[in-house]
Amino acid sequence: MTYCVGICLRDGLVMASDTRTNAGVDNVATFRKMHVWERPGDRVVVLLAAGNLAASQSVVSLLDERAAEGGEEGRSIYSVTSMFQAARLVGEAVRETMRLDASAIEATSESFHISFLLGGQIGNGQSRLYQIYTAGNFIETSEDTPYFQIGEHKYGKPILDRVARRDMPLADAAKLLLLSFDSTLRSNLSVGMPIDLLIYRKDALEVEYNHRVEADDPYFMQIAIAWSKALRDVFASLPELEFKD
Amino acid sequence: MTYCVGICLRDGLVMASDTRTNAGVDNVATFRKMHVWERPGDRVVVLLAAGNLAASQSVVSLLDERAAEGGEEGRSIYSVTSMFQAARLVGEAVRETMRLDASAIEATSESFHISFLLGGQIGNGQSRLYQIYTAGNFIETSEDTPYFQIGEHKYGKPILDRVARRDMPLADAAKLLLLSFDSTLRSNLSVGMPIDLLIYRKDALEVEYNHRVEADDPYFMQIAIAWSKALRDVFASLPELEFKD
Repeated sequence: MTYCVGICLRDGLVMASDTRTNAGVDNVATFRKMHVWERPGDRVVVLLAAGNLAASQSVVSLLDERAAEGGEEGRSIYSVTSMFQAARLVGEAVRETMRLDASAIEATSESFHISFLLGGQIGNGQSRLYQIYTAGNFIETSEDTPYFQIGEHKYGKPILDRVARRDMPLADAAKLLLLSFDSTLRSNLSVGMPIDLLIYRKDALEVEYNHRVEADDPYFMQIAIAWSKALRDVFASLPELEFKD
Repeated sequence: MTYCVGICLRDGLVMASDTRTNAGVDNVATFRKMHVWERPGDRVVVLLAAGNLAASQSVVSLLDERAAEGGEEGRSIYSVTSMFQAARLVGEAVRETMRLDASAIEATSESFHISFLLGGQIGNGQSRLYQIYTAGNFIETSEDTPYFQIGEHKYGKPILDRVARRDMPLADAAKLLLLSFDSTLRSNLSVGMPIDLLIYRKDALEVEYNHRVEADDPYFMQIAIAWSKALRDVFASLPELEFKD
C-alpha cells in the first residue's frame, strides 16, 4: 500500500508521499514514490505514484527516457507547453505500460492498478494538480475540492475534509498533510516513514522545499504529539451525554 | 455499507449502529441493525449486524424463532448460560444461513459477507463483547483492544485509537462512539443517520439507555459542531513548519 496526498492552493502546491512498498507484511521495502522534473525558471513537474510498483516504475522510466532524449515537441516532460499536456503525457505512458504488461500481470492474478498525482507549473501557466487513473484519464482539483489522495486514503481524510481550504498558506497545508499522514501511519502498517514532502510556491518555477521527513524529524514529532494530546483534551472538554433519566 | 461499533469497558458496554442500507447509491433504505434480547434481572444480549442484509436478517430470525420457542437447554438466546455460549449460538446461526444461502447468493455474483458485534451479560458472568465473522468464528475484546468495528471502519478509527480506554466512563464512551460516527458519516454516503445508541451498565442485567439519535438530535449536533470547531482551532494553534531556509 501507499499513501500520497497533494493540495493545490492559491499560493502553490504541497505534495507528500510515503516510501513503503510491500508484497505481504513479510516483504517490506523503502522506495521513493515522489519524482521531480525541474528546470529552474521554466518548469517544475512533480509525480507521486501508488499501486503496482513495477508498473509505476515503468511509467516513470518511460517519462525519464523521453525527457533525456529531448524528443520531439510535446513528447517529453521538458517540452510540453502546459500542465494539461504533461498530464496527457503521463496518461499515454500509463496506457503504453498497460498495453505491454497488463495482460501478463493479470494472468498471475495480481492486479494492474496504478494511480498518480501530478502537480506543477510550466512557464506562465497556472500551478495545477491532477489525479491520473489506471486508464490514463485524469481529473483536476477545483475550488470546492483542492486536494487529492491516492492509496490508503481513508484514515487521513477526515482531517483534510475539516481543514483543507484553497486559500490556506503553504506552511499550513504542509502541517495539514503531515497530520493526515500521522493518522494514516497509526492505522495502516503498509504505509511507512519516511515521508517525502515538497512545497512549490506559485510562479517560482523552482522547488522551494523538498525534504525527507524521517521518523525522528523534530517538527513531525512535535506536531504529532501535540495533536494527539490536544485531541484528547478537546474530547474531555466536550459536554457529557446525560443518559440517567 | 454499514458502520457499527462497540466498546467493552470496566463499567459495562456501549454499542452503536447506523441504519442505512443500500444497493447502489440509487437504492437506499433505513433498517435497524441493532437487535436486543433482554430479560431484566437475568440477561441482556445485543447484536449489531453488517453485510448482506438478507443474510443478517436470516440470522436474526433464526435466533428470534428459537428464543420464542424456548427450545432445549443452550439452543436459545434465553437459555444459554454464558456470553461465550451466546456467541457460539450466533455463530451456528451464521453457519446455518451460509449452508442454505451462500452458494445461491455467490452464483449471482453478490458476496455473502456478514459480520456481527455481540455484547451483553448473562447472570453472574462478565459483560463481554465479541466480533463474529462470516465463518461463524469469533474473537473477544481484551485489555489492549477494548473496541470492535464492523462495516466502514476506517474513517472512524483514528479517534478511537487515540481516546478509547477500557477504564473510561460509559458517558465518555458514548461521546466517543458518536464522534467516531460523525467522522464516518461525513466521508461515506452509505453510512447514514439515525444512529441507534445503547448503554449497558455492568451487573444491571437490563438496558440502561437505548436511544435513536436522529440527525437533529441536540446532543449529537452540539458535540459534532464543537468537535469540528475545536479541531480547526487546535490545528491553527500547532506550530508552523519553517521551510524558508
